[in-house]
Amino acid sequence: MNAPALPPSVRRPVPQACLDELAAHFGERLSLNETVRAHHGRDESPFPAVPPDAVLFAESTEDVVAAVRACAAHGVPLIAYGSGSSLEGHLLAIQGGITLDVSRMNRILAVNTDDLTVTVQAGVTRKQLNNDIRDTGLFFPIDPGADASFGGMASTRASGTNAVRYGTMRENVLSLTVVTAEGKVIRTARRAKKSSAGYDLTRLFIGAEGTLGIVTEITVRLYPQPEAVSAAVCNFPSVDAAVAAVIQTIQMGIPVARVELLDAATVRALNLYSKLTLRETPLLLFEFHGSPAGVEEQATLVQDIARDNGGMDFEWAVHPEDRNRLWAARHNAYFATLQLRPGARASSTDVCVPISRLADCIRETNEDLAKASFPTCMVGHVGDGNFHVQMLLDPDSGAEWAEAETVNRRLVQRALRMDGTCTGEHGVGLHKMQFMAEEHGEDALDLMRRIKQALDPLNILNPGKILPPSAN
Amino acid sequence: MNAPALPPSVRRPVPQACLDELAAHFGERLSLNETVRAHHGRDESPFPAVPPDAVLFAESTEDVVAAVRACAAHGVPLIAYGSGSSLEGHLLAIQGGITLDVSRMNRILAVNTDDLTVTVQAGVTRKQLNNDIRDTGLFFPIDPGADASFGGMASTRASGTNAVRYGTMRENVLSLTVVTAEGKVIRTARRAKKSSAGYDLTRLFIGAEGTLGIVTEITVRLYPQPEAVSAAVCNFPSVDAAVAAVIQTIQMGIPVARVELLDAATVRALNLYSKLTLRETPLLLFEFHGSPAGVEEQATLVQDIARDNGGMDFEWAVHPEDRNRLWAARHNAYFATLQLRPGARASSTDVCVPISRLADCIRETNEDLAKASFPTCMVGHVGDGNFHVQMLLDPDSGAEWAEAETVNRRLVQRALRMDGTCTGEHGVGLHKMQFMAEEHGEDALDLMRRIKQALDPLNILNPGKILPPSAN
Repeated sequence: MNAPALPPSVRRPVPQACLDELAAHFGERLSLNETVRAHHGRDESPFPAVPPDAVLFAESTEDVVAAVRACAAHGVPLIAYGSGSSLEGHLLAIQGGITLDVSRMNRILAVNTDDLTVTVQAGVTRKQLNNDIRDTGLFFPIDPGADASFGGMASTRASGTNAVRYGTMRENVLSLTVVTAEGKVIRTARRAKKSSAGYDLTRLFIGAEGTLGIVTEITVRLYPQPEAVSAAVCNFPSVDAAVAAVIQTIQMGIPVARVELLDAATVRALNLYSKLTLRETPLLLFEFHGSPAGVEEQATLVQDIARDNGGMDFEWAVHPEDRNRLWAARHNAYFATLQLRPGARASSTDVCVPISRLADCIRETNEDLAKASFPTCMVGHVGDGNFHVQMLLDPDSGAEWAEAETVNRRLVQRALRMDGTCTGEHGVGLHKMQFMAEEHGEDALDLMRRIKQALDPLNILNPGKILPPSAN
Repeated sequence: MNAPALPPSVRRPVPQACLDELAAHFGERLSLNETVRAHHGRDESPFPAVPPDAVLFAESTEDVVAAVRACAAHGVPLIAYGSGSSLEGHLLAIQGGITLDVSRMNRILAVNTDDLTVTVQAGVTRKQLNNDIRDTGLFFPIDPGADASFGGMASTRASGTNAVRYGTMRENVLSLTVVTAEGKVIRTARRAKKSSAGYDLTRLFIGAEGTLGIVTEITVRLYPQPEAVSAAVCNFPSVDAAVAAVIQTIQMGIPVARVELLDAATVRALNLYSKLTLRETPLLLFEFHGSPAGVEEQATLVQDIARDNGGMDFEWAVHPEDRNRLWAARHNAYFATLQLRPGARASSTDVCVPISRLADCIRETNEDLAKASFPTCMVGHVGDGNFHVQMLLDPDSGAEWAEAETVNRRLVQRALRMDGTCTGEHGVGLHKMQFMAEEHGEDALDLMRRIKQALDPLNILNPGKILPPSAN
């Protein structure tokens, strides 16, 4: 099977003494099993698996401390692993070493309904939390496509469909418990809503992809379940028209909870995969949260904007079941679009641009995609200026993988020209390292390298990710 | 005049060669004048002035580069200075060196109305920006008491009265241009609304008080001026009752734009200073933003909550002039309360706690303040769990200053016990350094020190601030 090339890297040895120390602490929760290792050496990226030398299953912050101390003592790489749903090669053991699976750290530690906060262990997933707290009348809004873990969502600065209204992990994490590269346990902040007490360690670990420390507990904000929720589908004659409607909605400051763009190919895929009967044109999927009157007011304003841009009448998902079906379908878009080309694998892109440039960026991208030799679909958290192209590739065609890499590179460079970013929410992993210098410049990248060196001087935490080797 | 003691520190020499280099670049914009130096050696903190050896007036990022390079070449401290309104001794030249006044860097560089963003030079003040962009229909919400500069607001992670709805500088800065300790110019992020591309350099410099780099340009989010705004005053029989009403408002998720607590002493001071006729009881000052219907709905809900807690009927500030007068008075509270004790100087506190602990924290604090031998006032951004006590001190009484320090220490420790922070919005400066270890723990503080060492290895950028000397 073909796939993008991995950056060059050298596996580091894992001394038997290190494994012995880990075995003494973890017992049967240290696994050398080949299947277990293979499973932990991959993610949802197009890269082939690169298994670690061993897998640990942590059940507590103390376990994480034991793992870090053993790895630090022997200079062995340590990769934190949540639900394995990352998309850019974050989890591949390209320098060998140990993978630390935190999925058994799945306890919800403290729900503070009075403060609208919850503290969870790193292995708790977003769906688990929302199921668990349903009766409190509160919810957690961040929803990447997969049922990701909180450790993973914090470490990739995840967002999803609700970010346009509720923000990303960057805005919603209050505090982290982190095990440092020396095996010290720190808490990055108090539970107060704001603070000016020194450097923002919380935000430093958010998006660091496990390269600066290992997140073991996360305190996030919760929100009251809105009194009223309504969702609507609006079909448009073109992607351009749909994007124009979104831009005006955002610029007017209408607090839509969700506004997702699906192109016609994606709509077709959802109809097939999720047994829906959506009209197969580009469409926007809206959700409004608020009081009954507030929701109606928002919806009326947005419907007017949509009409001005050639949109058809809203089709409402009135019952909660209909709404949930629609959003479940949206969350399954990745898997649904795969069915458009049986046997295909998907390579996904993830740019984000200032919203004033979104129409240009999507238009130029669609012109480029029209020339591609494989099918593509586009979905977008367009209220944030963030969109994804799924490229459905023949896994056996080296030519298609190479072409996909070229299309992605052109897309990223287009976004960078428009003052955008190479990744809105997936993170850097291995696949986006090639764009870090172009996006940030060598001097800013040098600061990031110094921070990495300062916090992880032995380079044991998820080494070889995020930061490309220095050009000097 | 008495004042809190300064931490011990040693002035570093400023070699003539350094001054010569600076003079060659800055000409008359390098000042050795004693009055100019004295003016730049103080802020609004209770500390006595500690003047720098020279003051530079920067007019561009290139000027900042020249200043940093000369100071780096000679190991000379460099302190960035905006409008001088910080409150905890941030600007005192305790190790000598050069103060870099950026107030002439006052250009608004780019208003992007389509993206709801603006890029300003570091010396632009919040009032200047809002006056300048008024006709765009947009506004910038963050409003610390003083007319602070954007460089200062970014560097202290400032907030103010609108933070409960719009967030703080942490949430509202998209990107910074920063001059590093080596004199390199970096941009911390693109103008996209979100990104997962590597370490969050933006948030690292926000709140760093000029100790990691010098912020020269700031890109922030703007918001559409709300279609409807209404403000109301609500009197309460006690501070407790007012706080209970706030907590319920926040817990219900009502998106109030502002909710400020003033105790009876502060109300009396505002009446005297700003010629208002407010009833002199504890009160809440509310502002609601939204559509006309939305504002009415919010106000009705909050009035019901207030009544349930013994609040009187809302008194509305109907006309924009009335509203502006009320908020101008609130912003002048610091100066107004000074008049309650003619000749007094104020020492201000700044804790922030989880809102579930706010009532306890304020109640215990008021019990403590009742025993103080000087007058006090309390105001609070209570929707965020953040409040300030002004202690009005006889400048000539060493006993009062010492007592004020003790009261502040008890208040901070009370807040820390309640999982709060020693500073919600003022920053650390010199005065809160004593609480950093207690708030963060030595291991987290050690990470902060390593970051400082990594980014400013010569320790030239605002040295001796934020981070207390290591206990080791």
